[in-house]
Amino acid sequence: MTRLWCELAWLGGERPDERVLISVDGERIESVTSDADPPGDAERLPGVTFPGFANAHSHAFQRALRGRTHGGPGSFWTWRDQMYELAGTLDPDSYLALARATFGEMALAGVTLVGEFHYLHHGPGGVPYEDPNAMGHAVLQAAAEAGVRIRLIDACYLRGGFREEPDEVQKRFADRDVDAWIERVNALPDPAAAIHSVRAVDPESAREVAAWAASRAAPLHAHVSEQPAENDGCLAAHGLSPTALLASVDVLSERFTAVHATHLTDVDVSLLGDARVTCCFCPTTERDLADGIGPARTLRDAGARLSLGSDSHAVIDLLEEARAVELDERLATMERGNHPTVELLSAATADGYRCLGFDDGGRIEPGALADLVTVGLDSVRLAGTDAEHALASVVFAGTAADVRHVMVGGRFIVRDGAHADLDVPRELAAAAGR
Amino acid sequence: MTRLWCELAWLGGERPDERVLISVDGERIESVTSDADPPGDAERLPGVTFPGFANAHSHAFQRALRGRTHGGPGSFWTWRDQMYELAGTLDPDSYLALARATFGEMALAGVTLVGEFHYLHHGPGGVPYEDPNAMGHAVLQAAAEAGVRIRLIDACYLRGGFREEPDEVQKRFADRDVDAWIERVNALPDPAAAIHSVRAVDPESAREVAAWAASRAAPLHAHVSEQPAENDGCLAAHGLSPTALLASVDVLSERFTAVHATHLTDVDVSLLGDARVTCCFCPTTERDLADGIGPARTLRDAGARLSLGSDSHAVIDLLEEARAVELDERLATMERGNHPTVELLSAATADGYRCLGFDDGGRIEPGALADLVTVGLDSVRLAGTDAEHALASVVFAGTAADVRHVMVGGRFIVRDGAHADLDVPRELAAAAGR
Repeated sequence: MTRLWCELAWLGGERPDERVLISVDGERIESVTSDADPPGDAERLPGVTFPGFANAHSHAFQRALRGRTHGGPGSFWTWRDQMYELAGTLDPDSYLALARATFGEMALAGVTLVGEFHYLHHGPGGVPYEDPNAMGHAVLQAAAEAGVRIRLIDACYLRGGFREEPDEVQKRFADRDVDAWIERVNALPDPAAAIHSVRAVDPESAREVAAWAASRAAPLHAHVSEQPAENDGCLAAHGLSPTALLASVDVLSERFTAVHATHLTDVDVSLLGDARVTCCFCPTTERDLADGIGPARTLRDAGARLSLGSDSHAVIDLLEEARAVELDERLATMERGNHPTVELLSAATADGYRCLGFDDGGRIEPGALADLVTVGLDSVRLAGTDAEHALASVVFAGTAADVRHVMVGGRFIVRDGAHADLDVPRELAAAAGR
Repeated sequence: MTRLWCELAWLGGERPDERVLISVDGERIESVTSDADPPGDAERLPGVTFPGFANAHSHAFQRALRGRTHGGPGSFWTWRDQMYELAGTLDPDSYLALARATFGEMALAGVTLVGEFHYLHHGPGGVPYEDPNAMGHAVLQAAAEAGVRIRLIDACYLRGGFREEPDEVQKRFADRDVDAWIERVNALPDPAAAIHSVRAVDPESAREVAAWAASRAAPLHAHVSEQPAENDGCLAAHGLSPTALLASVDVLSERFTAVHATHLTDVDVSLLGDARVTCCFCPTTERDLADGIGPARTLRDAGARLSLGSDSHAVIDLLEEARAVELDERLATMERGNHPTVELLSAATADGYRCLGFDDGGRIEPGALADLVTVGLDSVRLAGTDAEHALASVVFAGTAADVRHVMVGGRFIVRDGAHADLDVPRELAAAAGR
């Protein structure tokens, strides 16, 4: 039994509770008591303790692009060429090393659960590895070694575009057909499913992926309408928007997460809201790739939930993602207060956990997974706040650098801002430097 | 003589120079040599050394609002009510303490020069202090104690709106007339001038402020078109946009800085560009206050320069301001590469210095002020970069937390991320907590 005494802890309300005693038994929270005196055997955690952050959309290997594409011109599509070039160089060993370093950076940023949207499956030329899940296993091992909980979201990828064969790099993403994808993912432990996009998966195959996910009650994700060109292509090929096409083959449900959901019609918003899907916003990537500003508030109003992802890892900072949802929408609408601070925090925690299939995490309550992150209030960024304003201060002025302690499943993987097991900067320099 | 040997230093080119020896004599740089071996007596600076950052638009006291207004609803105008409430509570002593702590935070973020746009002049009810510049002197003393170079930009403020008397708080900002403003600022050491805005200063008084600045060859700043309501009011009162109105009374020149410049007509852009003004963008504030996205690229193309400010200090991070200019414009235009990385760095350094009247700073070259900032490349944010990509990595993924050493006028005010003289978090907690 571990006992943690938190100066402040966010239990879901408009402000943090004070003097919160959290008892942890094994990998779960046993009890939570506010206004408690600190027992002598309790570990004291100054600052604000939150449920661990869920990074609901990650492509771990893209960390190696940081700084190498961000200053330049071009578009999403020219960026994609650079990303493909990187992807073409990886094998299971280098993928393991790069993903472990990236997940280590996430741990230091307070990420306790990552949803890895995994599409780099096969060897050069699309030849399967001896274990056809060698790359997926590398990712799972990387998360285990970094101490971060993971949901591997294995992406079905069948074609290079609406009417295109996969190119040389895309062959590494592609399975022969949806049956081959099903056979492969059935050999993975507890995978979630993804339809990479309406570009990469035909509608009937998308229907089969969704049926597979339904049969396992597994989360189902897809990239949706990140760029107008995807909408245009989908309309030309199928006469429907990506969202409407996915709806037509029974993809939308409470288990579905639409990643990005940037360029939507009013009908799309209604479809997503009525189905109670989650929309995973990745605003630092959407800024970087000039994707645009998605209608987060309208989606919430329509019934959708929000989650957050650092996606391409231009930066890894879930607090920056959370505030960016609100701040970018302010730029689009010229209104403040589109999202209450607690909604942004829910997106970073419970709603992120839920969209990755962990209904029992992302909250500080008895029985929940003991995944916790403590943000210090003693840096120059947060000094001067008080209990009443601590949530808004952390969300709007805190950074990954303010994360002090991180617990996953009852074990501290980060203490005092340092990883328990890994020299993360050294691993990043070795794996992401090229 | 101090000798600094920099692993990498940005001397203005597309990539940093390597192994750069900088000799400092007194408060100026004496010599700069690339590809130099490190002399035994040189201090070694790993990472990338830049010219010090200029924070060209600051209202230091607004640091006390951080986290207290940012999560809520409302608009620029309701935020202004909260800001006025804070302003109403300050006196020279509390202003000194708050500004010193804020400038201390800036020092830790690599800011070596701050342009303090100063309008909180008088005591309650607008009664002048015994020294009518008591508040200005408090700000100057605060910067001196924090070790940061300052240009006090004293703002002429005469009325509460286009046809309104100052309210109770605004009386503290207001001088009786422009002659009273001139008499007061003449008693300040080396002030720059500001026209607070076209709301607060009538055109003929604006002309006199501009004439005063011209006679002293002093910088002249003004808030310009931050909100559409200002444009609407100006058009109704004067039949001109704020920019056109300022142009009509001889305000625009190379010494002029238009702060925000968010909502401009094509004619405004031409006027500002033709006059070779500087436009000071404050994107983290413009996000926070739902101001909108200004046409930074069009302004540059038309002939204007850019500088950067943290303004309301929702956050203090010049790297975040620099990338936000580019990233927000990507959201508006759906194009990457609106601003080359070196242009963003120039805005943070030489062009910021210039718009504050320091033509001899913001660059690493013989004779320039020895104002320097070293950004470490060893954090998880920047690990994995190399010399070729270091500039884009720092601008697009670095943060204030990566600032290691800061020199102002030949003296280190920050070493290893700690302030030489102040316990900044403690001062912020005391002065900004309420």
